[in-house]
Amino acid sequence: MQTTQKRICIDMDEVMADTVAEHLFRYNRDHGGQITKADMQGKWLWQVVPVDHHNKLEEYLRSEDFFDSLPVMPDAQRVLQRLQQHYEIFIASAAMEVPTSFAAKFRWMQRHFSFIPPSHIVFCGDKTILNADFLIDDNARQFRGFRGEGILFDAPHNALVTSHRRVSSWLEVEKLFLDDMNLA
Amino acid sequence: MQTTQKRICIDMDEVMADTVAEHLFRYNRDHGGQITKADMQGKWLWQVVPVDHHNKLEEYLRSEDFFDSLPVMPDAQRVLQRLQQHYEIFIASAAMEVPTSFAAKFRWMQRHFSFIPPSHIVFCGDKTILNADFLIDDNARQFRGFRGEGILFDAPHNALVTSHRRVSSWLEVEKLFLDDMNLA
Repeated sequence: MQTTQKRICIDMDEVMADTVAEHLFRYNRDHGGQITKADMQGKWLWQVVPVDHHNKLEEYLRSEDFFDSLPVMPDAQRVLQRLQQHYEIFIASAAMEVPTSFAAKFRWMQRHFSFIPPSHIVFCGDKTILNADFLIDDNARQFRGFRGEGILFDAPHNALVTSHRRVSSWLEVEKLFLDDMNLA
Repeated sequence: MQTTQKRICIDMDEVMADTVAEHLFRYNRDHGGQITKADMQGKWLWQVVPVDHHNKLEEYLRSEDFFDSLPVMPDAQRVLQRLQQHYEIFIASAAMEVPTSFAAKFRWMQRHFSFIPPSHIVFCGDKTILNADFLIDDNARQFRGFRGEGILFDAPHNALVTSHRRVSSWLEVEKLFLDDMNLA
């Protein structure tokens, strides 16, 4: 490992894993719903689902197999493997909001991103604790107080956020970090 | 929260929790052993237990109730509550070595240190990822590459390590951070 390598932290939910797709799938299946990501522009799932179904949304997140079922975001695996050759990569997931999810999230990462060593996986709540140059996250709130630069990964709920550099896919991550930047 | 507050990260095992005491208790109970901490100076438990019992030591760490049973280090609760008034406190536990322990460690911290918000609990492997001014840890290996100052907390295995500022108890942590240092 070169000490001159820049360090990138990557969020898991809605960046590596399509958490919203699984959440929508379960909700639509159980409630005969037709909600799509297009209906969620600028909103969290909680804002498009009736209030009396909110406990159901919570339940999905807490169910044993929710995180095991998450689809991998397109190109995430290939691009992360490329990034690893030029940057020090850490995964940083805000698991403290659903503490029952630690083990399942860890299993998911081991299964789909086995090339990331366990020592480079972090579960935290407040991401200002991360000592990194970049944080790729769908939640702009996590950039406040972060010591590096926050890169916003497109998600329905952040469609209206304009405060940060933004990427819409892993192909754009690849372009930004491997083509556009001056590699050390 | 004042932005001028210094940030201290605290390790859990062998700093907040007397992990060695519980490990020794279980080992001695099941094997009619008489090993004490005094027998372990400069050594890890693995070095004082016969090799053919090592799998048993692993098993204890992986058992459902091991972390639930850990005794709290003397004065840790009171001193951490005092420190919280002057510093930003994060707990940073290297849980990735025993991934099955996440939930149990989280429960333990919620039970004994409920005044630490979940957002300030971090599970990680490589502690160079922590953005903090100080790290109180029993494992000097974690100080390599850490951006702040490492403070070594006495543990049997580190008795011979001389490379870092050292504290032998939470009373010494209290003295160092609340009496000796110039508080911001």
